[in-house]
Amino acid sequence: MPLTPEQQAEIDALRATPRPTLRAVSEGMEAHLYRAHQVLDHGFVRVIDYMGDDAAIVQAARVSYGAGTRKVNDDSGLIRYLMRHWHSTPFEMCEVKLHVKLPIFVARQWIRHRTANVNEYSARYSIMDREFYIPTPEHLAAQSTVNNQGRGAVLQGDEAARVLEILKSDAARSYDHYEEMLSQDGQQGLARELARMNLPANIYTQWYWKVDLHNLFHFLRLRADAHAQYEIRVYAEAIAKVVADWVPVAFGAFEDYRMGGVTLSARAIAVLKRRLAGETVAQEDSGMSKGEWREFTEVWG
Amino acid sequence: MPLTPEQQAEIDALRATPRPTLRAVSEGMEAHLYRAHQVLDHGFVRVIDYMGDDAAIVQAARVSYGAGTRKVNDDSGLIRYLMRHWHSTPFEMCEVKLHVKLPIFVARQWIRHRTANVNEYSARYSIMDREFYIPTPEHLAAQSTVNNQGRGAVLQGDEAARVLEILKSDAARSYDHYEEMLSQDGQQGLARELARMNLPANIYTQWYWKVDLHNLFHFLRLRADAHAQYEIRVYAEAIAKVVADWVPVAFGAFEDYRMGGVTLSARAIAVLKRRLAGETVAQEDSGMSKGEWREFTEVWG
Amino acid sequence: MPLTPEQQAEIDALRATPRPTLRAVSEGMEAHLYRAHQVLDHGFVRVIDYMGDDAAIVQAARVSYGAGTRKVNDDSGLIRYLMRHWHSTPFEMCEVKLHVKLPIFVARQWIRHRTANVNEYSARYSIMDREFYIPTPEHLAAQSTVNNQGRGAVLQGDEAARVLEILKSDAARSYDHYEEMLSQDGQQGLARELARMNLPANIYTQWYWKVDLHNLFHFLRLRADAHAQYEIRVYAEAIAKVVADWVPVAFGAFEDYRMGGVTLSARAIAVLKRRLAGETVAQEDSGMSKGEWREFTEVWG
Amino acid sequence: MPLTPEQQAEIDALRATPRPTLRAVSEGMEAHLYRAHQVLDHGFVRVIDYMGDDAAIVQAARVSYGAGTRKVNDDSGLIRYLMRHWHSTPFEMCEVKLHVKLPIFVARQWIRHRTANVNEYSARYSIMDREFYIPTPEHLAAQSTVNNQGRGAVLQGDEAARVLEILKSDAARSYDHYEEMLSQDGQQGLARELARMNLPANIYTQWYWKVDLHNLFHFLRLRADAHAQYEIRVYAEAIAKVVADWVPVAFGAFEDYRMGGVTLSARAIAVLKRRLAGETVAQEDSGMSKGEWREFTEVWG
Repeated sequence: MPLTPEQQAEIDALRATPRPTLRAVSEGMEAHLYRAHQVLDHGFVRVIDYMGDDAAIVQAARVSYGAGTRKVNDDSGLIRYLMRHWHSTPFEMCEVKLHVKLPIFVARQWIRHRTANVNEYSARYSIMDREFYIPTPEHLAAQSTVNNQGRGAVLQGDEAARVLEILKSDAARSYDHYEEMLSQDGQQGLARELARMNLPANIYTQWYWKVDLHNLFHFLRLRADAHAQYEIRVYAEAIAKVVADWVPVAFGAFEDYRMGGVTLSARAIAVLKRRLAGETVAQEDSGMSKGEWREFTEVWG
Repeated sequence: MPLTPEQQAEIDALRATPRPTLRAVSEGMEAHLYRAHQVLDHGFVRVIDYMGDDAAIVQAARVSYGAGTRKVNDDSGLIRYLMRHWHSTPFEMCEVKLHVKLPIFVARQWIRHRTANVNEYSARYSIMDREFYIPTPEHLAAQSTVNNQGRGAVLQGDEAARVLEILKSDAARSYDHYEEMLSQDGQQGLARELARMNLPANIYTQWYWKVDLHNLFHFLRLRADAHAQYEIRVYAEAIAKVVADWVPVAFGAFEDYRMGGVTLSARAIAVLKRRLAGETVAQEDSGMSKGEWREFTEVWG
Repeated sequence: MPLTPEQQAEIDALRATPRPTLRAVSEGMEAHLYRAHQVLDHGFVRVIDYMGDDAAIVQAARVSYGAGTRKVNDDSGLIRYLMRHWHSTPFEMCEVKLHVKLPIFVARQWIRHRTANVNEYSARYSIMDREFYIPTPEHLAAQSTVNNQGRGAVLQGDEAARVLEILKSDAARSYDHYEEMLSQDGQQGLARELARMNLPANIYTQWYWKVDLHNLFHFLRLRADAHAQYEIRVYAEAIAKVVADWVPVAFGAFEDYRMGGVTLSARAIAVLKRRLAGETVAQEDSGMSKGEWREFTEVWG
Repeated sequence: MPLTPEQQAEIDALRATPRPTLRAVSEGMEAHLYRAHQVLDHGFVRVIDYMGDDAAIVQAARVSYGAGTRKVNDDSGLIRYLMRHWHSTPFEMCEVKLHVKLPIFVARQWIRHRTANVNEYSARYSIMDREFYIPTPEHLAAQSTVNNQGRGAVLQGDEAARVLEILKSDAARSYDHYEEMLSQDGQQGLARELARMNLPANIYTQWYWKVDLHNLFHFLRLRADAHAQYEIRVYAEAIAKVVADWVPVAFGAFEDYRMGGVTLSARAIAVLKRRLAGETVAQEDSGMSKGEWREFTEVWG
């Protein structure tokens, strides 16, 4: 359980005191505010604040298009049109601020999404907590034999046990040593900014992360994808559920055009057209490489 | 007056219906929501939405610094510390969305601030309104004789009258021609995306502009500065008043360290130290150029 | 002709003096350096500097993937893989700096691409040249009757003549008045930063524009697209030709996956699969809106 | 020594083959190309490519200011003017690409500078090398007693020895375990993307990092500062030396206005003016907090 009783009490207190506002309010998002959605063994995602809703997207788009747009029958149609045609600026008009607790090796992937605001817990200034990500046995996977950056089968029996034992004991030892080096009991005590270098990448950190909806969709498209590493994908999936409650129409369009969609190259279009015309096309005859053909047939058979 | 009765009625309606929220609320900002602050002859600035308050800055900074920070006595001291040491990320945790109506030549300067989200009224899609910025006589200034990009004395008598007459009649004629080219009355009607090219840079456009507080402060520092062009400075000043009500502590620190502060070069520091030691220093002896020395003596005499 | 003899002499001089460098060199790009590619009636695009080539993309990707990547047979396959899987960071390792002369209404669309560096000629500081974009008759199009932001048929006879006469005479008059207001002959002379407001949006400005290859591809995808306004599309097309000479492999992948590709929604995939299975699908039965269906059938019949 | 003989041979080969280019060439930078500047025990900084020089800054600024600027006597004066007045866009016209090898805890600070392009060695795809940062004894500092995020005195005798022994043995053990978990010798072998979580933050990674000169100056100002952590400061200092050879005029202005300069608040200006008038001002009477006063007197006595 990632929350202490004090933390839960703080959340309860924050949720007990609604205040009036004249701003746009998303009821779906209000239900999530401050609550911790557990991810992995000690991590979480919490919504701290948000700005805008589906209507804010439409409103911003109507400034772009002015009075002429009125002909688009309904808001949902307009939002789908914007998503289909990569009109990203109206989606940038919504913003969300999350509090995330996550292992450092996940944080290192996450931070590569640059168009966001971040305040991370400082291990120069403060002492890290003794919390490490230890995978459950079903997520202890072997190196993939076909994909250099993927996972294969789940580790079996003794090997799994050995790995878990290594991860647990190394985490515990490194943290013991971290405390030992920091200690000012009978010694000077190493600087925090130095002692942290001994901690492994599965220790948990936390940050506030603020991002607009367009860039969040981009994050979700890459990180909720089946090719993303499991440990970041579960964060993306937890956030996706929240977004579905926040801006249901925009999220629906995102699911249809991005998560559930595919991009076809000119070569792939040509192959599909030949197939539609009744022709049977082989890889050698497609203009595609073997890897590209494999990806193509995964979708189209 | 920049607002139509319909627009004012819409604002009144939006302000009449507060809804409960669990988010941070800034009372100072709630008072501004949707209201139009007039700028120039037909322009305005309106707050459409906001996220965060002074406490959100502190909250984000405390994640950065963790428990160790508790020693900073009060929030105001921490915010001043962050501003002094250019710790910009906590200020990025606040966000504001504005609706702005402004002349195109002002919009062209404004858009150079890239770290913001924009949706502008589209003249490809829609027809522009017949509204042009015409300076009041006291802002009809001559070219500066000492500063290539500044203004000098106010134009006098006949010259001022001639200029105003030109600006008014050219605006009216160009708009008449715009309508004439667009007209589908007895002719095909030129495409909007082409007809707009005839409109001068003092016609009004409008946009939604969303920005975080750190980048907004940067905008205000440059555009509320005495060297900024008057026509954008008045927008910056109108926004500054709103920000002072939104995040009073952060704005106070911004005024002290940025708007009211100066940056001294190593050479300028050396000169001031010599002065503090009782020495009289001349430009030739300062290591500074004439222009630099003039700017230096404007502050220090 | 957009270049003066002095400008052409300067270009010739710059091209006459090669110097040795240890950096990556793209022969295709060296042939373009400094030369002006004419666009519209008075505009141009010139390459001023560039960094990197196809090999630099591969080199950066190999750091991402380390030794494991060696298995990808050839550079071209790796570049196509990166493009297909939206791995954008290796493409960001190439950079180009352009000098562009363009009408202000085109510049206003262009600047919306925020991830680039810009230095524009300042009309606060300097005096604008008397150069205006006047469309050729075959680009004088009527408003589209089916697309609110598009063009329809070319204007005919008298109407075309009237439009051209308006554009020419308004441009000339506004520039005459601009000079008249600026003049210090027997009067004070209006400040440049004010006088410019009288100039219409078809006057030419110029800027240095520096962008990385990933963001340039994004620009080209949107602006070389058939839906882009003609007057910006011709700039995108001129730049695309330069890029094809600079990084031919990356450009080939871009053409196949982006310019020639399409994105299919989940609904569109489902329809195509039904068609591949021999079924005839109607719009009412597709889950798509009429607009979406029209766009779908434009590609797939 | 951070380079293998193969790496040194590759560098020598790259440096042996100059090619002609028409681009701007910085002789100072050509001397650095590809060479490894050692930083810390196993790290380095290498220049891989660059674009522009001092003249490119001036050239870009002259487009901003047009013909009017000619009055600024010389390029150096213009560059100093731009730096003094925070005109950042001309500096953005220069770009540099570095290859950096650095410990992960340094990389985590570095990546917070978002306006840059990065390709990092992938530990999902590839196997990390057995290289860890172990501080030299003189950099093994105690936690500061006055600054929560700083270092105090150097650790003495037994304590220093204990810390070094912990860092070395934990690094060795974690890497042994990393290899053991990855091994496919008689077992499946854990996925690389999982095994890496056991590695501590002082293991070395490497990346290509590309940034424009304006953002690089911002990086140097923060990271070459006396308050920056030593382990990132040495990278900043190594880069600063390279930049001084690349764009000597711009670097000189940067040193004078940024590295050697200070920012004074309105309150600090008021105190200095009182001192210049002969008054003695105490902290209680200054309007400044104790911390602010301490920083003020560090500069001004």
